[in-house]
Amino acid sequence: MSDATKSTPHRRFNPLTGEWILVSPHRTQRPWQGQVEKAPRPAALEYDPECYLCPGNARAGGHRNPPYISTFVFENDYAALKPDIVEFERNESGLLIAQSERGICRVLCFSPRHDLTLSRMDPPAIRTVVDLWSQQYVELGGKSWINYVQIFENRGEMMGASNPHPHGQIWANSSVPNEPGKEQLSQQKYRDSRGSCLLCDCVKLETKAAERVVCENGGFVALVPFWAVWPFEVLLVSKRHARDLTVLSDSERDALADILKRLTTRYDNLFEISFPYSMGFHQAPTDAQSHDEWHLHAHFYPPLLRSASVRKFMVGYEMLGTPQRDITAESAAKRLRELSEVHYLDRE
Amino acid sequence: MSDATKSTPHRRFNPLTGEWILVSPHRTQRPWQGQVEKAPRPAALEYDPECYLCPGNARAGGHRNPPYISTFVFENDYAALKPDIVEFERNESGLLIAQSERGICRVLCFSPRHDLTLSRMDPPAIRTVVDLWSQQYVELGGKSWINYVQIFENRGEMMGASNPHPHGQIWANSSVPNEPGKEQLSQQKYRDSRGSCLLCDCVKLETKAAERVVCENGGFVALVPFWAVWPFEVLLVSKRHARDLTVLSDSERDALADILKRLTTRYDNLFEISFPYSMGFHQAPTDAQSHDEWHLHAHFYPPLLRSASVRKFMVGYEMLGTPQRDITAESAAKRLRELSEVHYLDRE
Ligand SMILES: O=P(O)(O)O[C@H]1O[C@H](CO)[C@@H](O)[C@H](O)[C@H]1O
Ligand SMILES: O=P(O)(O)O[C@H]1O[C@H](CO)[C@@H](O)[C@H](O)[C@H]1O
Repeated sequence: MSDATKSTPHRRFNPLTGEWILVSPHRTQRPWQGQVEKAPRPAALEYDPECYLCPGNARAGGHRNPPYISTFVFENDYAALKPDIVEFERNESGLLIAQSERGICRVLCFSPRHDLTLSRMDPPAIRTVVDLWSQQYVELGGKSWINYVQIFENRGEMMGASNPHPHGQIWANSSVPNEPGKEQLSQQKYRDSRGSCLLCDCVKLETKAAERVVCENGGFVALVPFWAVWPFEVLLVSKRHARDLTVLSDSERDALADILKRLTTRYDNLFEISFPYSMGFHQAPTDAQSHDEWHLHAHFYPPLLRSASVRKFMVGYEMLGTPQRDITAESAAKRLRELSEVHYLDRE
Repeated sequence: MSDATKSTPHRRFNPLTGEWILVSPHRTQRPWQGQVEKAPRPAALEYDPECYLCPGNARAGGHRNPPYISTFVFENDYAALKPDIVEFERNESGLLIAQSERGICRVLCFSPRHDLTLSRMDPPAIRTVVDLWSQQYVELGGKSWINYVQIFENRGEMMGASNPHPHGQIWANSSVPNEPGKEQLSQQKYRDSRGSCLLCDCVKLETKAAERVVCENGGFVALVPFWAVWPFEVLLVSKRHARDLTVLSDSERDALADILKRLTTRYDNLFEISFPYSMGFHQAPTDAQSHDEWHLHAHFYPPLLRSASVRKFMVGYEMLGTPQRDITAESAAKRLRELSEVHYLDRE
């Protein structure tokens, strides 16, 4: 891109959601006297007797975890969605509209080790998690009334994770959630009007331009999207046109495990902390349509901006107007690209 | 509403933005082991020699505040938007789209007193702030190239405010931001199809139903919208169809000052702290169209959920799927409605 985007306030368009974001590249010098976060530290214990996710421990409501040695899945003890509800619909004057929502919420432990994170697990162990995600997508998505399977991870206290034990969640439900809904519309429109796939075309453009690429391998590319909102946001895209995790080949699954390890290691190395983020996969809805427009990807939304303790606040203008960022996608990508892929805790 | 919305997971539709939210009313019993916030305290000093917003003090870049005795406005020293830019446009393959964005960012001190908040100012002083907002809307909106004037306040460290001194901001720019853009579309569509105003009809419905009303006076009603996202979110609406602050009568401006005081006092009384929030006004764009569809309102987005120290995190599922809430709008309204309008710090 030209120099103008490096220095001039501008807005950029997100073709996946159809929304704009505001970029203020000159604003990085702003002093900070606001809230300072506790620097996130990795958990210290391999096994924590107080943790409700560690193997063999007690959970809420009298459940007890098995002595699992790899991954472990269970129904969320405080599920936001439930399968066994009485359905209803309400519409008062087209202004008060409500519909019951059936769903299933699950918790996925990535490892028996309380002190690990994806960045500190070895690729074969991460591969087991990839296979579990894929298997859950099949199992949950296979139910006739489940039309979307949202796989995600909240990592770190700053992102509302209530437990440092490495784990993610799945919320699967009958209506397609807002964000994948917008992406579906955009992908469909792009395909209809241009005859190609939005994200396939992005991958081509971005791997050629290189300036927003963080790292890549045979199957995946991790890049800071042109329209990133969060300071170090990353879009992880499969190189091949794949609609979901289940169609990935054996080597593509290994490639996904590899890039997850490398990306999260770069993240931890950025400020030499256990880097907080929310991440999740967007895949085709499980509504028995073919969804050729859908291209599998994951979003990483990390909150930190300047240091281990100063985050970006998405508040007043962001909530009421348009999301605003202080560093360009290109400069964020450059910083992430220049980092080592050896984890700072593994260095001599 | 029927009992089903009190106990069954469901989604509700926001007719102002056209988006859905997820309600999980049974989820309030969930234990919390996650991040605990510092309880927000009011500032202790009436005048803080270190504060860059107090009268007479030095700011960034060699500026000094006048010894102001009521309100005070200045251009943001670290503005996200600037008026004097070289305009540009970029479009690579319809995928990398950027446009320069001209704008003006201002800071508005509500009071010379460092230790006050809107909730602790007297109604005539708040009325001065209302008049200032209106005057700024006229002055900034009057510039031919400014098409939107976003007035907002980030209150409290938890909401990214970098200074406790009572102040708000205005970001005024040439393109209409995302949120008012969506609201404009919805209000226009509603008016076109039904011949009446969306928010006028809402006010009628809500004042009659009463269960989501927090407080009201002759000019305004404060209610928890049916489609609220944040636990104690409030929509403040003018009773009369007014497109912006400037058309309010003298008594309506007093009514706005009155309800701002009463609502923010209830907020502070909820957990007996200086209640954090982001708030802002949505008004007609200043693009020289008549905008009969627009109805003036303010949104209050407070982050706290259970107590002074446990907030709602809008993270994984909210970022990647759909916003989710754990208490119903009706129960939040009831709690706010039952609170006193005497500030807890003023009680004997
Ligand atoms: O301008 P301030 O108060 O320094 O900054 C605050 O408000 C801005 C507008 O909502 C946000 O972009 C910043 O993230 C926040 O910290
Ligand atoms: O389900 P958890 O981990 O207890 O809760 C966390 O993730 C959820 C899904 O993103 C959010 O709704 C909660 O606000 C957050 O604290």
